[in-house]
Amino acid sequence: MKHTSLLLICLIIHAICCQQNTPQDIAQKIKEYIHQTHRNDIKNKNLLQSWIRQASFPGNESGIQNIIAKTLKDDLKFDNVDVFDMSRLGDELFKNKLFRSPRTAEQLKVSPIVVGVMEPSDSCPSFVEINTDASQINQRYKSLILNGHVDVVPIGDETQWKHKDAFSGEYYHDGDSERIHGRGTTDMKGGIFSSLIAVQAIQHVFNTTRLCAKLIFQSVIEEESGGSGTLAAILRGYGTADAAIVPEPTGMKLFPRQQGSQWFRIHIYGKQAHGGTRYEGISAIEKSTTVIKSILSLEEFRNKPLRSDKMFSSLPIPVPINIGVIKGGEWPSSVCDHVVLEGRMGIIPDGKETIDSAKQMLEQWLSKDDLIQLDSYFEKVPVRVEWFGAAWVPGHVDTEHQVVQTLQRAYETATNGQQVTVASSPWATDAGYLNTVGGTPAVVIGPGQTSLAHQLDESISVDEIYKCGEVIALFISEWMMNLKK
Amino acid sequence: MKHTSLLLICLIIHAICCQQNTPQDIAQKIKEYIHQTHRNDIKNKNLLQSWIRQASFPGNESGIQNIIAKTLKDDLKFDNVDVFDMSRLGDELFKNKLFRSPRTAEQLKVSPIVVGVMEPSDSCPSFVEINTDASQINQRYKSLILNGHVDVVPIGDETQWKHKDAFSGEYYHDGDSERIHGRGTTDMKGGIFSSLIAVQAIQHVFNTTRLCAKLIFQSVIEEESGGSGTLAAILRGYGTADAAIVPEPTGMKLFPRQQGSQWFRIHIYGKQAHGGTRYEGISAIEKSTTVIKSILSLEEFRNKPLRSDKMFSSLPIPVPINIGVIKGGEWPSSVCDHVVLEGRMGIIPDGKETIDSAKQMLEQWLSKDDLIQLDSYFEKVPVRVEWFGAAWVPGHVDTEHQVVQTLQRAYETATNGQQVTVASSPWATDAGYLNTVGGTPAVVIGPGQTSLAHQLDESISVDEIYKCGEVIALFISEWMMNLKK
Repeated sequence: MKHTSLLLICLIIHAICCQQNTPQDIAQKIKEYIHQTHRNDIKNKNLLQSWIRQASFPGNESGIQNIIAKTLKDDLKFDNVDVFDMSRLGDELFKNKLFRSPRTAEQLKVSPIVVGVMEPSDSCPSFVEINTDASQINQRYKSLILNGHVDVVPIGDETQWKHKDAFSGEYYHDGDSERIHGRGTTDMKGGIFSSLIAVQAIQHVFNTTRLCAKLIFQSVIEEESGGSGTLAAILRGYGTADAAIVPEPTGMKLFPRQQGSQWFRIHIYGKQAHGGTRYEGISAIEKSTTVIKSILSLEEFRNKPLRSDKMFSSLPIPVPINIGVIKGGEWPSSVCDHVVLEGRMGIIPDGKETIDSAKQMLEQWLSKDDLIQLDSYFEKVPVRVEWFGAAWVPGHVDTEHQVVQTLQRAYETATNGQQVTVASSPWATDAGYLNTVGGTPAVVIGPGQTSLAHQLDESISVDEIYKCGEVIALFISEWMMNLKK
Repeated sequence: MKHTSLLLICLIIHAICCQQNTPQDIAQKIKEYIHQTHRNDIKNKNLLQSWIRQASFPGNESGIQNIIAKTLKDDLKFDNVDVFDMSRLGDELFKNKLFRSPRTAEQLKVSPIVVGVMEPSDSCPSFVEINTDASQINQRYKSLILNGHVDVVPIGDETQWKHKDAFSGEYYHDGDSERIHGRGTTDMKGGIFSSLIAVQAIQHVFNTTRLCAKLIFQSVIEEESGGSGTLAAILRGYGTADAAIVPEPTGMKLFPRQQGSQWFRIHIYGKQAHGGTRYEGISAIEKSTTVIKSILSLEEFRNKPLRSDKMFSSLPIPVPINIGVIKGGEWPSSVCDHVVLEGRMGIIPDGKETIDSAKQMLEQWLSKDDLIQLDSYFEKVPVRVEWFGAAWVPGHVDTEHQVVQTLQRAYETATNGQQVTVASSPWATDAGYLNTVGGTPAVVIGPGQTSLAHQLDESISVDEIYKCGEVIALFISEWMMNLKK
């Protein structure tokens, strides 16, 4: 009875408070604030640039993390900004079977993770939740995770960058579009900045610091090596919420499913000999060509049935197996007796395939199903499959889920009626961990083109960063007011 | 007239001197000296062991070279023992287009070459030469080069050697056969020791220090990196003679032809992309499988006509193209955009093919004749062929040449009537330089199995070292007495 009364009071307050702000009004105010006030403020321009100028390779993330922590604390007034390093998690993290970082606890001490937590406003009218059938009312806050990573991949051969200084953070114009240049712009400091813009927009439009939901803002590390930064944040208690958005560069597509992945190393053995009598040896290099052929046929075998699923239909190879590294031999005039292939196997985000079942499939393909049919040599001298390095669990949220649907509407509003493309991501993200380990419905939508990530001359459209900020802000404004879970 | 008189006198002296020593007598004395006197002398056993115990990697050859120089001077009484380093040759060597050493002149200063020169005996009855038709008589000495290299290749992973200490020089028995263990035994200190035994046998049996020919004993370095040590000896004036024997490990086969070789590096280009969207890139690893296929077909194209030549018929692939190294990519989940293949192309020792013509053939095969037929991609994105590192010129002596025929007879005598196998070597040796640059008919025959060279647990049969010593001694004894050039 008490609950019912409270609910009624709340609904009345809510109605009063909001009568001056229709959803259209709010959307308009968000748009204006984001694209005018926020964007034209030179302080914000400089802030993003200062992030890009931090060459946040693994081991060098503290610069940007300190800036972000300060912004969350001083400017966004987060209640608690937890700056911690992964070593603090101890065995719970380092002995976790999903832990992937190549660094030791000691090495990770220099690399902080930042998690800002903002409690919901206690004056907020809409933090009470009722079930759809109104049988249960829970006086609880909704919660939202905004997750992004600051670690960046190597810049490769900098002499090949057309824009010199891979960390300049230089703003420039490409036609009408403003862009910002540098490693990490697209993957994914631009996306983190979109989240920041969104929170500031809500704060501004609703004239409040706190939102009507508990907000957990995660700026993590070690995403590129397999997501152990987000795993650490989850294990520290920040991983469970009613929704999570990870603004990785999707080109503003919405990915409720994220492909998982697992790195592999395949050893192919031959027999040494002098190159002049190479017929006395067995070339592991020649044998490797058959192994590559077999891996390509496994990829086709796995992808053929996926092409009829509309979530995958836009992808030429929905869940690729990529061989990224080949190494064999030391001496041009010796027969090479050992070749190593290293690659990345995509894990199908259908809610059924797991990393373990995918591993088993590859192993069986090379030991039994396919490779030895191509060359019986591999029956006598089998390849050895090793699982190493990075792995990301796949993520999967139903397209009917409120998070997905609310984001679809937010996108439509921000783009004057365009439909967002809903698809499966061609790569893994930390959303998989939030989903699988945190139990949080996590989706990925963000600014920037995948094709520029990890590339020479990485850059991002500033327009798109702000567009994404608007979409996330619109999502928050609807979702935090929506009492249905 | 004067010449004719001299010739007659010489022939008379010769007849008198030799009447007590039929070739059979000499052969018997050589055999006894070598297999009994020499072999049972503990001093000789220790001498060979002291050579093996010198880990004569590039930069560390001076130990064995000093021992050899001392032996040539003190024990074999060479007139002149020239110990010099390659830096002394200056630009003539270092700017020579056949120069291959990876070391600089400065670095080579620590690595001496030893050349012992012994003038012919002035009491020797047979140093006068007449032409076959007796129209010309030249009062000149014959000359013979005995060439060998002391540099050894790396030992690889020593923990994999069954006999510990790769430079122990330990004598041991394998059934009835005595062997000596260690890196460099087969390739090719054993062979140099055979040459030493041969010279000592001639000195003993003919009871003279000097031979009836000018003898040039070359103990060189830098063979394994392409033969620049022998090139230096040639440029210093020691490379031209009436014959040269290089006792590399042929298993006592006789190789009047020695395959040349040239290292190559092939760059294959693709296009980077994230592994999850690998269809946006072009995998240089996949493209490399086609390049490997094309190289194999060039090998077949070159070798098919050689198989009908009896000099090559014992070799499954007479002149192989070996791809010994493959390297590509740095990141398992990126599409690899650059693969490098490194290998060794055999140069056909038929007197027609040169290193340059072989290079041209490979380049044309990959740019025009074959590769682009397999995949037109290579028309737009051609492979780049680079010629680097080691190269050895091929060597070619006619099987009718006196050097070859005399060695065949020497082998027959030493083995009680067995025929030596005459073939083309499956690898290059310094004989190619002596032949091509020095203009010396150079052949290869030596103790030890090719299959043990450059391998773990390298060792050599001591019996075979002595057998080869006997063959070279028998060759010298017949050849230096033979007045026909």
